[in-house]
Amino acid sequence: MQAALPERQENCWALPEMILDPDRYFDPEPGQRKIARELYQRVAGMPIVSPHGHVDPTLFVDEGVSFGTPTSLFIIPDHYVFRMLHSQGIPMEALGIPRVDGGPVETDHRKIWQVFAENFYLFRGTPSGAWLTEELVDVFGVTRKLDGNSAQDIYDQIAEKLEQPAFRPCALFESFNIEVLCTTDSATDPLDAHKKIRASGWHGDIRPTFRPDNVVNLLTLGWRENIITLGEVSGVEINSYSSFIEALEKRRAAFKMLGATASDQAAISAYTHELSPFEAENIFQHALNGDVTGNEAAQFSAHMLMESARMSLEDGLVMQIHIGSIRNHNSATFRKFGPDKGADIPERSEITHNLSVLLNKYGNDPDLSLILFVLDESTFARELAPLAGHYPALKAGPPWWFYDSINGMRRYFDLVMETAGIYNTVGFNDDTRAFPSIPARHDVWRRACANWLAGLVVRGIIDIEDAHVMVVDLVYNLAKKAYRFDTN
Amino acid sequence: MQAALPERQENCWALPEMILDPDRYFDPEPGQRKIARELYQRVAGMPIVSPHGHVDPTLFVDEGVSFGTPTSLFIIPDHYVFRMLHSQGIPMEALGIPRVDGGPVETDHRKIWQVFAENFYLFRGTPSGAWLTEELVDVFGVTRKLDGNSAQDIYDQIAEKLEQPAFRPCALFESFNIEVLCTTDSATDPLDAHKKIRASGWHGDIRPTFRPDNVVNLLTLGWRENIITLGEVSGVEINSYSSFIEALEKRRAAFKMLGATASDQAAISAYTHELSPFEAENIFQHALNGDVTGNEAAQFSAHMLMESARMSLEDGLVMQIHIGSIRNHNSATFRKFGPDKGADIPERSEITHNLSVLLNKYGNDPDLSLILFVLDESTFARELAPLAGHYPALKAGPPWWFYDSINGMRRYFDLVMETAGIYNTVGFNDDTRAFPSIPARHDVWRRACANWLAGLVVRGIIDIEDAHVMVVDLVYNLAKKAYRFDTN
Amino acid sequence: MQAALPERQENCWALPEMILDPDRYFDPEPGQRKIARELYQRVAGMPIVSPHGHVDPTLFVDEGVSFGTPTSLFIIPDHYVFRMLHSQGIPMEALGIPRVDGGPVETDHRKIWQVFAENFYLFRGTPSGAWLTEELVDVFGVTRKLDGNSAQDIYDQIAEKLEQPAFRPCALFESFNIEVLCTTDSATDPLDAHKKIRASGWHGDIRPTFRPDNVVNLLTLGWRENIITLGEVSGVEINSYSSFIEALEKRRAAFKMLGATASDQAAISAYTHELSPFEAENIFQHALNGDVTGNEAAQFSAHMLMESARMSLEDGLVMQIHIGSIRNHNSATFRKFGPDKGADIPERSEITHNLSVLLNKYGNDPDLSLILFVLDESTFARELAPLAGHYPALKAGPPWWFYDSINGMRRYFDLVMETAGIYNTVGFNDDTRAFPSIPARHDVWRRACANWLAGLVVRGIIDIEDAHVMVVDLVYNLAKKAYRFDTN
Repeated sequence: MQAALPERQENCWALPEMILDPDRYFDPEPGQRKIARELYQRVAGMPIVSPHGHVDPTLFVDEGVSFGTPTSLFIIPDHYVFRMLHSQGIPMEALGIPRVDGGPVETDHRKIWQVFAENFYLFRGTPSGAWLTEELVDVFGVTRKLDGNSAQDIYDQIAEKLEQPAFRPCALFESFNIEVLCTTDSATDPLDAHKKIRASGWHGDIRPTFRPDNVVNLLTLGWRENIITLGEVSGVEINSYSSFIEALEKRRAAFKMLGATASDQAAISAYTHELSPFEAENIFQHALNGDVTGNEAAQFSAHMLMESARMSLEDGLVMQIHIGSIRNHNSATFRKFGPDKGADIPERSEITHNLSVLLNKYGNDPDLSLILFVLDESTFARELAPLAGHYPALKAGPPWWFYDSINGMRRYFDLVMETAGIYNTVGFNDDTRAFPSIPARHDVWRRACANWLAGLVVRGIIDIEDAHVMVVDLVYNLAKKAYRFDTN
Repeated sequence: MQAALPERQENCWALPEMILDPDRYFDPEPGQRKIARELYQRVAGMPIVSPHGHVDPTLFVDEGVSFGTPTSLFIIPDHYVFRMLHSQGIPMEALGIPRVDGGPVETDHRKIWQVFAENFYLFRGTPSGAWLTEELVDVFGVTRKLDGNSAQDIYDQIAEKLEQPAFRPCALFESFNIEVLCTTDSATDPLDAHKKIRASGWHGDIRPTFRPDNVVNLLTLGWRENIITLGEVSGVEINSYSSFIEALEKRRAAFKMLGATASDQAAISAYTHELSPFEAENIFQHALNGDVTGNEAAQFSAHMLMESARMSLEDGLVMQIHIGSIRNHNSATFRKFGPDKGADIPERSEITHNLSVLLNKYGNDPDLSLILFVLDESTFARELAPLAGHYPALKAGPPWWFYDSINGMRRYFDLVMETAGIYNTVGFNDDTRAFPSIPARHDVWRRACANWLAGLVVRGIIDIEDAHVMVVDLVYNLAKKAYRFDTN
Repeated sequence: MQAALPERQENCWALPEMILDPDRYFDPEPGQRKIARELYQRVAGMPIVSPHGHVDPTLFVDEGVSFGTPTSLFIIPDHYVFRMLHSQGIPMEALGIPRVDGGPVETDHRKIWQVFAENFYLFRGTPSGAWLTEELVDVFGVTRKLDGNSAQDIYDQIAEKLEQPAFRPCALFESFNIEVLCTTDSATDPLDAHKKIRASGWHGDIRPTFRPDNVVNLLTLGWRENIITLGEVSGVEINSYSSFIEALEKRRAAFKMLGATASDQAAISAYTHELSPFEAENIFQHALNGDVTGNEAAQFSAHMLMESARMSLEDGLVMQIHIGSIRNHNSATFRKFGPDKGADIPERSEITHNLSVLLNKYGNDPDLSLILFVLDESTFARELAPLAGHYPALKAGPPWWFYDSINGMRRYFDLVMETAGIYNTVGFNDDTRAFPSIPARHDVWRRACANWLAGLVVRGIIDIEDAHVMVVDLVYNLAKKAYRFDTN
């Protein structure tokens, strides 16, 4: 790999330090930059509202929990990071990614860090590069550029910090000024971590999110075991579709008791369809008997989106749908390392037709809050914004995953806002597993919002008064309202 | 709704006035802005050519016709406006939108205006917001920002203006400097309004456009009644496919007599297909008998695009096709309020294959002028521009509907012009029902063109001489030539 | 046509000279422009690496070969040029494009040039316009703008140059500073020109590329004749699938002997599928018997992509796939003038599912270098970048064809780089038949890279040190490495 890198020039423009530009991500035109800076200053210090993400709640069950080594913090849990190294031919074993079969992988965290540092140039111009740099500088006080030469010194510096109480997850939660953090939790999860956090007396506001994917998608590996677990945690004997629904409703209530304000469903497509009770029961029995067909499972998933909407209207949980990701595209990686290893690849999506059954039944009800996340930007202006700009129940989710980036946000503003208006959007989600990256991710959003609005001001599209209101809405109010934290 | 709005800050940047930035929509970089201003000045005062839109011709049958109240002017007829209010949970009844069943809706226009004003913040950064602001300021001399506080004063101010002769439609037509305005009229329309305008002696150039949607799409609600009406207005007894064609040809001739230079067809897709006379007759008879299938209707629509092209070549009417809109997506809204209520949602489109039958038969004939409008921007660079950049008959229609906006125009220039060149495009269409918004919409286009060309000049892609020629072409010549106003 | 052109204004901004702005294609903001200029200066003079294109190798078999007239150089071989003239109704016969049947076409090259010059305004703002201008100015020293008035003088000026030894292809190859140029050659091509070049003693590095389209796509017109030719040039009697594979492998070896480092396959879609040896043989026999079905041919093409990947792993040739072009969309043009006449139109593409069979079998092998070119930009961020950012074997090909342009490159950087990183891309391909346009095309890329990187620098996304490394990688190193010129 290294051979590909041209020799670094030793000359006047060499910058061995890693510095964060205080005006980073702002357009360079001085007029716009000045206004962007002004708008950013207004929101830079606001509390972080993080309504959707994948942080492990066990990090917060006890104020003494530590992140471990720099490698266990930055590399091993972050598939955004190791998929890029993998793309250049570095085996995931060499990065310490645990194997499903427990087989040997690299355990020398300093060695893994060295490989990472030597290949850190791969992240130039990527959002991961921006987040990592911001974490290194802002959270850990690193000032040298990360490369093969500086690797071990920087490792030492971070490791030393990670042993300090101020770098425990609970302490960082507070210094990050997080007002609320939602995790994502399986419907079958007993939520022990969340119970412990509540019992601990620690005042951080951490809430679960109800995610029924592994029971509503009948072809999920281990579905029948999941149903048994769901029966156990809900206290409902599940032998029929109606008892299944009852169990889900009980779990939703239990999630709500622990602060949940939202559910979330991942679906390949936005296809919605309503089954008759008889059809639903019939398919569910096939699944229990292990002879459900692919088509039945697809119809059932489509039906369960309808059911989620109905339940949301009844219990008030906000409904989230994430569509368009083909999970585990790389079978070899999946077999060896399991899911969520950077091999989930988007596919083309369709919303106008697929979501019409749900929208026609529930979309006119302003009491439903349905937030749709898509990975196909061609739907942004064509389908998502027109639908969100018409149906009271539907809101456009923020730029997700590959689009949680400077360009992704700019394109989102460009494609969505003219038709939907910002008030049919819901602010920002960081959607991350990497807890220490949360401030960096929200900072990108805040800067992107400030810069976008500044662009509207200098083009005479909005005035500065409105821009000041809108930047606070985009950074804080819209998420808080859409996820009903203001009333829960 | 209002609760969602953060409190407005009372401080130095408060701007209670509503002011139009004279450099609005121009890029802020001073070099580009200077050239944009120069190019804009060249075309700002040129006459408006409006070759496609939906203004009601009865507004012009008599110079005494009035627009009514501010609410009947700005809100009730404009689905761009009330769909946004609806998206935030405001019932359309509360906005005075007439119900199909004649049931009760709000009739207090001041009350409706108040709701509109209190929610005017929803339009921040949207094209509707820009047009409305420009109309309020430029046409009605409003200077305060529209919100809940200023609502009634502004209502008074507009209402007072609307009673003056200078604010009658005919007077505004002249003060707007409209050279030609085309309406859209059903094939079955007897064109009484157009006849009256011609007979009135008023010199405004208003022309009909031949739109056969409700007779060529066999599944249109009320199709058989439409065929009877078509028979009546054309004087042809329609009992066969061939008499149907004869009736259409007669109507086209009648439209031409009243100044029409173009036809227009809305189609879900660009699918074209040629039926044999026997097949066409057979399907037409099924339709007359009320037992046509969905597939037959689709084949017939595809065939009628071919027929339109043939007729266009014979009678010289420019052919327009608008594709990709799923009409009346919201059934409840459609049942209660009828069509064109802000619930038409785009779908993905395909042109390369769908249009190939038509292009292969007629596309090489420079005597055909076929203008294609699409709502799927992913086709702009991929299909529309390459096809328009090859076939002599095909021109790329301007950015339509949701894309008739600052961003939409910028993306259109970006995606279409490199491959098609500007001379395979046709200038601008305002496509509006909202007559007083016409100058604002054309002004956005003029500014967008000036700014785009200025960007090319400062990047050394074109020189200033060419930019001066191109801006006049884009604003005036291309539309006039493509719609054959220069020769009709 | 000329009538469409508004009268040229005779006033202060008239610029009768044609001048290349030294800062062309750079953003106007002075801070960014300064850095863009600095980065551009670094790479402006670097050797040209041209790993994929369609230049005719016979131009170089003898240092005395000439380009002929200005018309034979600029117009007749360049479908980018004449398709635009055709789109405005100028018959291809009038441009001297040879007919398949040998029928009469215009032979007066001065007359053709005059038509071209009078219509040169059609290319305003297009990449062809930019390249042509740059060729006229930089290669031929033209200083007047090309139009109807200057046409004959400019013709004289170019014609005079073309007779000089310095304007022979071999001489230009050297003055253009081309380090390596790859042509594209059918699998059935005996490569006589390449042999002659090698034998001539001339030191230009010109290499063939193995293109098996006309034998792996069983429905290719003349497929059986192609198989006979393939048998002859390979010395393998082809009567079975296995002998067909053997012949291909022999041809690949022969191409390698003459310097080839890559193969290339054009496919409508990225669909990959593996046939059993029995199935492959069966389909191949059907093809030999002339009774292969459309579906069999599609399966076979999909299988041959798998075979190409296998062969690439064995012989080390880089594998290129170009997808998404519907060839010869205009049947009349195809019948009269043959293929490659500007009527190839892109269609929507899909990669995530279509390429999964190949990627799952070979994608994790870093020894495979698979470069994918697409014409559907909606796949860039959604599919291409995520796949290239995960699979070690896959690299994103540069912006191709209609996207080999200033806007196309900008969108490519915008959509691809955040997710793939630049190190999963392969630099630039000029992909041209128009040899004298090579420097202009590479210059656009170099300027686009410099400007993009400068934009990242002024936004604080990368530092200037990294920008200097990245611009050299994008302009030179990435192509050289991806196409293995560094090791071959």
